[in-house]
Amino acid sequence: MQKIVVALGGNALQSGNGPATAEAQLEVVKKTCEHIAEISGRGYELAVVHGNGPQVGRILLASETAKDVTPAMPFDVCGAMSQGYIGYHLQQALKFALKERNRNVPVVTLATQVVVDRDDPGFKNPTKPIGPFYSEGEAKAMVEEKGYAVKEDAGRGWRRVVASPIPKKIVEIDSVRKLWESTIVITCGGGGIPVIENEDGSLEGVAAVIDKDFAAELLAEEVGADALMILTEVEKVAVNFNKPNQEDIAHMTYAEAEKHCEDGQFAPGSMLPKVQAAMKFVKANPDKKAIITSLDKAVDALEGKTGTVITFA
Amino acid sequence: MQKIVVALGGNALQSGNGPATAEAQLEVVKKTCEHIAEISGRGYELAVVHGNGPQVGRILLASETAKDVTPAMPFDVCGAMSQGYIGYHLQQALKFALKERNRNVPVVTLATQVVVDRDDPGFKNPTKPIGPFYSEGEAKAMVEEKGYAVKEDAGRGWRRVVASPIPKKIVEIDSVRKLWESTIVITCGGGGIPVIENEDGSLEGVAAVIDKDFAAELLAEEVGADALMILTEVEKVAVNFNKPNQEDIAHMTYAEAEKHCEDGQFAPGSMLPKVQAAMKFVKANPDKKAIITSLDKAVDALEGKTGTVITFA
Repeated sequence: MQKIVVALGGNALQSGNGPATAEAQLEVVKKTCEHIAEISGRGYELAVVHGNGPQVGRILLASETAKDVTPAMPFDVCGAMSQGYIGYHLQQALKFALKERNRNVPVVTLATQVVVDRDDPGFKNPTKPIGPFYSEGEAKAMVEEKGYAVKEDAGRGWRRVVASPIPKKIVEIDSVRKLWESTIVITCGGGGIPVIENEDGSLEGVAAVIDKDFAAELLAEEVGADALMILTEVEKVAVNFNKPNQEDIAHMTYAEAEKHCEDGQFAPGSMLPKVQAAMKFVKANPDKKAIITSLDKAVDALEGKTGTVITFA
Repeated sequence: MQKIVVALGGNALQSGNGPATAEAQLEVVKKTCEHIAEISGRGYELAVVHGNGPQVGRILLASETAKDVTPAMPFDVCGAMSQGYIGYHLQQALKFALKERNRNVPVVTLATQVVVDRDDPGFKNPTKPIGPFYSEGEAKAMVEEKGYAVKEDAGRGWRRVVASPIPKKIVEIDSVRKLWESTIVITCGGGGIPVIENEDGSLEGVAAVIDKDFAAELLAEEVGADALMILTEVEKVAVNFNKPNQEDIAHMTYAEAEKHCEDGQFAPGSMLPKVQAAMKFVKANPDKKAIITSLDKAVDALEGKTGTVITFA
């Protein structure tokens, strides 16, 4: 049976223009899970990785807003909370979508820590904005008092920024491996709870955001997946995106993808990390493939009908 | 190898008089995990269930306090978040405590839903207070607008109250069973995320608090545990508790325990549910035992040196 790691983008969890309530999220998640259940129904073994940007941002926002009433939670804990929140919705909705297809497959979410390098260059130059906007005075006070890094967001105020380090190790990988063959495992949510390894071997949460596509790639390598499937808003990766000469890509090799990256064809923080994750996977597994497509084209893409396939050669 | 389900009380997660920060929780959890690692070191297979009262209360409080800034989360989602939060701390600290003892045992937290009966009598008479205090006007508005049940808390204001229904089924039990023999599984946190089953077979989160000792008992039955161990603040269950004639109990049978319950010896919401969970377990498994003791006496109790042992006959 083919094993696939599926990475879900933000649009799989929340509608861009809908309310940011849990109830609205659940409705979107239910539709998403119809597609995942379809993939499972075609006989693929699955693990699911999801993003958490808007959710962890709101958890942090609520926590910071209420800080005079109850202590604010550190960012690693906010990430752990978002894994519980999103994982719960996914496992509830996916189990039902499977049941509707007469598939009795267990589904479970694992709280997942992902080790990052304390010397990751990301920590020296944090760029990922998180949480609420602050006035300049508040921002400077946070720098003084808490050692936070902050950045001004053109005209909208100041925000805390954290590193986006490269994932090195999935702490709970043994459990993923044990469940994989029988169970759809939801893991590395939000890219995983970022932790660093101390000298004594203990782990320690850090304020950072691990790119969920890189976490999914690491997972796919670690479990020996046959394919890494990154689901996003577009059916295919394109060059000259949104220009008159836009060209959709059905297939690209590692070398072709590398060239497009060098040419600045893919937007940083958007399509670029997806293509980079796909490239990393096929470089490590030259006989396997990565697919980038949209949620509603996922089954077609697995059957070779659409999507962008990335192979090494 | 003997299999044990361990239920951790609130004092295993937070110090009664310490700050309610995540950092303070982690320090308490580290000490707790030393004890759990000791139990594992004696060769027992473990699953861990924990309470979440203070934590889920604070998540709800932050969420409600910030509701004009970001939508408030429903109570089932707050429970899912608390599983992520507490599970993350436990799995991080326990893994290290095991490592220090040269035990390479995986540890993982499962987001866990627990089915309750929509006709549970608890839903008709909700008694469990959750979240912030409100004025009488705010409380009445919540009843009108959201259909919440509220109760006055002598002089301190009004609070929302929810049901405390009996757990019927652990949705993710398959995953617990698959991991159990190789892995310490943290599951049913806070008694589990309470869900009801709809007619079409879908699950739906409800605002309720499942007693974590009853959830641990159900888990112990479902996995065929050899013992249910409920850890609390006292070394032994006592009759005439805190009176001059207090008597600690080293062993009691089901019938003796039943008699003490009828005599009102155990405080509702405190020792009573623990004794009731222990009774339920030995009634269902007359050849097995339940143990109620304190965290630091857990190992001694397993070796028969202390604690209160409950057996059927």
